[in-house]
Amino acid sequence: MALKTVLIIYAHHSPSSFNAAAKDVAMQTLTAQGFKVIVSDLYAMNFRSSATAADIKSNLKNPEHFLYGDETFIAWKEDRLSDDIKEEQRKVAEADLIIFQFPLYWFTVPAIMKGWMERVLTQGFAYTLESIYDNGILKDKKAVLSFTTGGMESMYLPDGLNGDINVMLWPLQNGVLRFCGFQVLAPQIFWCVADAPPSERTAMLEAWQARLKGMLDEQPLSFAPTKLFDLSVQGGFRLCSDMKEAYASQPYGLTTGQHLGKPLPPNNQMKASPHDNH
Amino acid sequence: MALKTVLIIYAHHSPSSFNAAAKDVAMQTLTAQGFKVIVSDLYAMNFRSSATAADIKSNLKNPEHFLYGDETFIAWKEDRLSDDIKEEQRKVAEADLIIFQFPLYWFTVPAIMKGWMERVLTQGFAYTLESIYDNGILKDKKAVLSFTTGGMESMYLPDGLNGDINVMLWPLQNGVLRFCGFQVLAPQIFWCVADAPPSERTAMLEAWQARLKGMLDEQPLSFAPTKLFDLSVQGGFRLCSDMKEAYASQPYGLTTGQHLGKPLPPNNQMKASPHDNH
Ligand SMILES: Cc1cc2nc3c(=O)[nH]c(=O)nc-3n(C[C@H](O)[C@H](O)[C@H](O)COP(=O)(O)OP(=O)(O)OC[C@H]3O[C@@H](n4cnc5c(N)ncnc54)[C@H](O)[C@@H]3O)c2cc1C
Ligand SMILES: Cc1cc2nc3c(=O)[nH]c(=O)nc-3n(C[C@H](O)[C@H](O)[C@H](O)COP(=O)(O)OP(=O)(O)OC[C@H]3O[C@@H](n4cnc5c(N)ncnc54)[C@H](O)[C@@H]3O)c2cc1C
Repeated sequence: MALKTVLIIYAHHSPSSFNAAAKDVAMQTLTAQGFKVIVSDLYAMNFRSSATAADIKSNLKNPEHFLYGDETFIAWKEDRLSDDIKEEQRKVAEADLIIFQFPLYWFTVPAIMKGWMERVLTQGFAYTLESIYDNGILKDKKAVLSFTTGGMESMYLPDGLNGDINVMLWPLQNGVLRFCGFQVLAPQIFWCVADAPPSERTAMLEAWQARLKGMLDEQPLSFAPTKLFDLSVQGGFRLCSDMKEAYASQPYGLTTGQHLGKPLPPNNQMKASPHDNH
Repeated sequence: MALKTVLIIYAHHSPSSFNAAAKDVAMQTLTAQGFKVIVSDLYAMNFRSSATAADIKSNLKNPEHFLYGDETFIAWKEDRLSDDIKEEQRKVAEADLIIFQFPLYWFTVPAIMKGWMERVLTQGFAYTLESIYDNGILKDKKAVLSFTTGGMESMYLPDGLNGDINVMLWPLQNGVLRFCGFQVLAPQIFWCVADAPPSERTAMLEAWQARLKGMLDEQPLSFAPTKLFDLSVQGGFRLCSDMKEAYASQPYGLTTGQHLGKPLPPNNQMKASPHDNH
């Protein structure tokens, strides 16, 4: 077996934070397991979070009507993306698993990590219009969101004040990760870390360590397979109607539930369904 | 009636883009209606999108363990936030309505606009732990997401490849806007603008103009009222069980559906429910 590589995209300012501890546990555990571990420490790198024309070296195709997506797609083809983007793309290309480690900021990743997604996951590199979801360019890679919250777990139940955590994670897990093809592993959530007693925090890090040991063998979350959709403009990219019925009687995964208008499974039941495989 | 103020938070690089046109239509229409209109053109302002220690003037409380939320809360109280944040907070304080105008980037706002949210909507200014949702500090203000997409509308139906647009918008509309108290108006979505024929694009802008004329009188989207939740740590901030039943038999709004584990209403039915009022 070739050496496996794990990339950690890490977004916290402080080396004494719980997020730093979670990142360090991952580095140590995975290194001890024989993996190569690469860390992108976004704040320490002063990673640029705004997607701008500065991401493209020379020769804008249409400077009068600058469109970030069009320009970066061409720049990717012509090897004219900025060096910091190319460096991150090199890391992604090498990685078998990407761990996103962050504190939850406004129901999603911090802006600096959102910027990483916008700038690094360019068209051509991470997807093309033909290669998305099950056919996404990065489909041989795994990805996992690992994050801390301020809120309590019960606040993120379907009847909790903040609503279902699965709904909250949909744009990231489906819209970003799965869109590019990533096999999305169940999120690692460190609830309410600042208010937890020290012993609980230690226990959370131990559970994380235990999980990391088998992480590359985990089954990903199940989503409605892309082939069930009519992928044509006339078909509107909607679930084929015969498939809707077939799926309605099956145990459903994260996305199938959403696609069928069914409630999503609670977080602790987010297991891979045997009916979908990547 | 006092002069009303509308703040447009705008995130596109190019003055010839469709987003620029939508922003200009809003400026012109609202100005002609007698409103004061303020625009924050984030890319043109070179608005800093990463939340960092640079947002706080002098005297970090805990530089060894820098926590952005704690430090900005104290800095807000002591008037030590950076000048660019204070300027944006002044604009928000003055606004009766905020329009967020942006191209959809990875199922949400561009990183530069996410950065605006992280840096401007600080604890103390936009919310406190006691003042959220219906009691949020900004509860007398309205907010609306106005955005363009690359994808077709049918892709964002519950059975569309990208899943329900209401699920996609939940973190922004509930997690950011409503959390701070904003009355959230139905989103303005310009579908698939790059592929639409010119006449359709013109029609979209005309519909936007027509909507803007009555926008400040619109009923906001309905969400499950905050008072239905048990807002105590022991109660776990969950919907009171008697309320769950009462709500189950009522026409439900955007959030109530999510809180009851019911499918969300399709986008074009996202009307304010008469049962909830702000
Ligand atoms: C802009 C912004 C938006 C936010 N939005 C949301 C939101 O939408 N939803 C939400 O729920 N929360 C939100 N929060 C809260 C935020 O998610 C939490 O503050 C954050 O997750 C806490 O993680 P941390 O790493 O900073 O914790 P820290 O405060 O660094 O750590 C918590 C505790 O763990 C201790 N610790 C460190 N290392 C170890 C170790 N090795 N072992 C044991 N203990 C250790 C620390 O000393 C500390 O006491 C937001 C915060 C901000 C600033
Ligand atoms: C990083 C990234 C992530 C993305 N993620 C997503 C995603 O998750 N989901 C998704 O659906 N899409 C996504 N997209 C696509 C993106 O949302 C669209 O490219 C964007 O919304 C198009 O808006 P625009 O203002 O740039 O359009 P433009 O290309 O500027 O405008 C479209 C057309 O309108 C014309 N126009 C300009 N002014 C006027 C006028 N006054 N009247 C009539 N026509 C006019 C323009 O000339 C042009 O022909 C993403 C793009 C990027 C770069």
